[in-house]
Amino acid sequence: MSVTAPKGFRAAGVTAGLKASGAPDLALVLNDGPLDVAAAVFTANRVQAAPVQWSRQAVADGRARAVILNSGGANACTGPEGFLDSHRTAEHVADLLELSAQDVLVCSTGLIGERLPMPTLLAGADAAAQQLAAGETAGAGAARAIMTTDTVPKTAQVTTASGITVGGMAKGAGMLAPQLATMLVVLTTDADVTAGAAQSALRAATATTFDRVDSDACMSTNDTVILLASGSSGIAPAPGELEEAVRDVSARLARQLVADAEGASHDVHVLVRSASTEQAALAVAREIARSNLVKAAIFGNDPNWGRIVAAAGCVPESVAPFDPADLAVTINGVQVCRGGGLGEDRSAVDMTPRETLIEVDLGAGGASGDIWTNDLTHDYVEENSAYSS
Amino acid sequence: MSVTAPKGFRAAGVTAGLKASGAPDLALVLNDGPLDVAAAVFTANRVQAAPVQWSRQAVADGRARAVILNSGGANACTGPEGFLDSHRTAEHVADLLELSAQDVLVCSTGLIGERLPMPTLLAGADAAAQQLAAGETAGAGAARAIMTTDTVPKTAQVTTASGITVGGMAKGAGMLAPQLATMLVVLTTDADVTAGAAQSALRAATATTFDRVDSDACMSTNDTVILLASGSSGIAPAPGELEEAVRDVSARLARQLVADAEGASHDVHVLVRSASTEQAALAVAREIARSNLVKAAIFGNDPNWGRIVAAAGCVPESVAPFDPADLAVTINGVQVCRGGGLGEDRSAVDMTPRETLIEVDLGAGGASGDIWTNDLTHDYVEENSAYSS
Repeated sequence: MSVTAPKGFRAAGVTAGLKASGAPDLALVLNDGPLDVAAAVFTANRVQAAPVQWSRQAVADGRARAVILNSGGANACTGPEGFLDSHRTAEHVADLLELSAQDVLVCSTGLIGERLPMPTLLAGADAAAQQLAAGETAGAGAARAIMTTDTVPKTAQVTTASGITVGGMAKGAGMLAPQLATMLVVLTTDADVTAGAAQSALRAATATTFDRVDSDACMSTNDTVILLASGSSGIAPAPGELEEAVRDVSARLARQLVADAEGASHDVHVLVRSASTEQAALAVAREIARSNLVKAAIFGNDPNWGRIVAAAGCVPESVAPFDPADLAVTINGVQVCRGGGLGEDRSAVDMTPRETLIEVDLGAGGASGDIWTNDLTHDYVEENSAYSS
Repeated sequence: MSVTAPKGFRAAGVTAGLKASGAPDLALVLNDGPLDVAAAVFTANRVQAAPVQWSRQAVADGRARAVILNSGGANACTGPEGFLDSHRTAEHVADLLELSAQDVLVCSTGLIGERLPMPTLLAGADAAAQQLAAGETAGAGAARAIMTTDTVPKTAQVTTASGITVGGMAKGAGMLAPQLATMLVVLTTDADVTAGAAQSALRAATATTFDRVDSDACMSTNDTVILLASGSSGIAPAPGELEEAVRDVSARLARQLVADAEGASHDVHVLVRSASTEQAALAVAREIARSNLVKAAIFGNDPNWGRIVAAAGCVPESVAPFDPADLAVTINGVQVCRGGGLGEDRSAVDMTPRETLIEVDLGAGGASGDIWTNDLTHDYVEENSAYSS
């Protein structure tokens, strides 16, 4: 059901003609209220696309009614003209829906460094506005229209005990290493919440879901996660309930992003335990997740734990205190390294399942942290050596 | 001529039988004096192989007479037994050459997490000691015996105006991202120098040569660079002369490492200018050099400058202050991005030469720095998904 799962939302996905392939490329999400609460987190990349610059200031007041999202062009590194294009897009959608431009958020994804064909995009917005609808088909259409190299649309929803619903859609298959935010994601809820509660729930949820995905160590200029609340359920959730529901939907979407990462043949869960702090655990997990040698070995179904240990050893002691002689590494249940040296025979490890679990024990404390990544494959190289979407 | 280019050195390369392929796998370098000056820098990886642990303490007094190097096994993550193996190797070589074990440095390279077959290795050391010789053939043989996935041996030499000679050999084709040290490299000189001068020259030379190579962002557990000085020329070089010669030989060897990196089809020179500090320039250059998306695009001959700008934007402002709106990117002479936005038409860039020059102007000061890397190719994935050497 995607973003239309909660009450009070309509959506549409259309083919504006931004993609040469003729695939759907423009999505619109509208919050019919009664509330117009909105929260968002954006990429930590210092190079921020025009739609990120626009949406950041538009959502600063905690309010928004609509989100327009296009694939087929990132509108990043396009200068003042690119910002005006995002602004004009918001104004155009505002006119169509009788809103203020400041209530329209804009997201774009695709190639960096090209202007968007504005007449094409605005005509697409006209069509999307006409097709706005509630229900499953409309939500699915919007999720499909934001895909770039994604092979499947990504949606999720939950309904809590008290009766609020959170729905969401996401896109992202490459340049997938968010920090504080990620990819394009729109979450919706019919909960009756304040802007502060929405922002707080969103921040907390992204920190342990999207921020834990690191497919290729490359952080995008366009990452955006938006949460819209309509309040149409009339239910004010208990403290923590919204956050848990948002986290649940975010985790499901994040897992779908990993599962569809460009060219991947393994989804790799790197779990670091017995660290001095969660930050230390995450630093070690991320270093392992970013090692091309670890990732290529996994592609080859090779339980090459030496590369895992070598990656862990690259994390400065000031960041993650541990004694290399205490390291243990378990791959898919087989402890191939213990006491920093040889453990069970590596030939006992079955690397054929798509989901690969790497557990690293630092022997340095009680904290843990995990990162999801993918293997490094021929298909990743192929897809990214001739990128066009 | 490799390590035998300067007067006072003998070398040998033999097939001990450590490699299944039957290729040469054991090298020995002997300094016949009169001096026994030695300097070394080692990997900054916290997981340090047994030979690194041994050699670090053996060279601490600034003296060494011999270096034994094996391919076919890294002797890393092998625990106290692995350290004893390195110690026994040094003792064995010392007995053969009538030296103290503390005067024998040990280097190993190959798979992490396997013990070395010691009888095989020690028998190889016997053969190498018998074959020690001066001259070109012996030096070339040693350079060949330290190769793993290298496709060509790497040697260099220079003779300065005052008449001292520096020679060297290197191996390294993967896990090639040194910090403070790198790969396996043995440099020799007949200069009459102190241990302090040798260490100082080596540190300075590696900082701007091997430390600027970042082929795949993966730092090894075994990286070692050794400089041996025999003093047999009888010439005490002028201040700076040794450093310049060591830097020259190191730069030539480093360039050969990049040229032979696993699976690479482009050697990529990332040069960052107009930075606030050299450290800032290097941080931006390294981030670009480590971007899989940038590297895959170069493999595909795609001048995808958006990925370069996105990588630069991932460097924290505290590390490299710059305004994204001031960024300029020039690829192989064509300024495809200026003022943070569109520049010349990207189709004007010729990406077919093996050597690719990426120039980034930060507009933030007068410092510059460069990193050499490689592209990300199918062959890199293939070679590293089924590693065995």
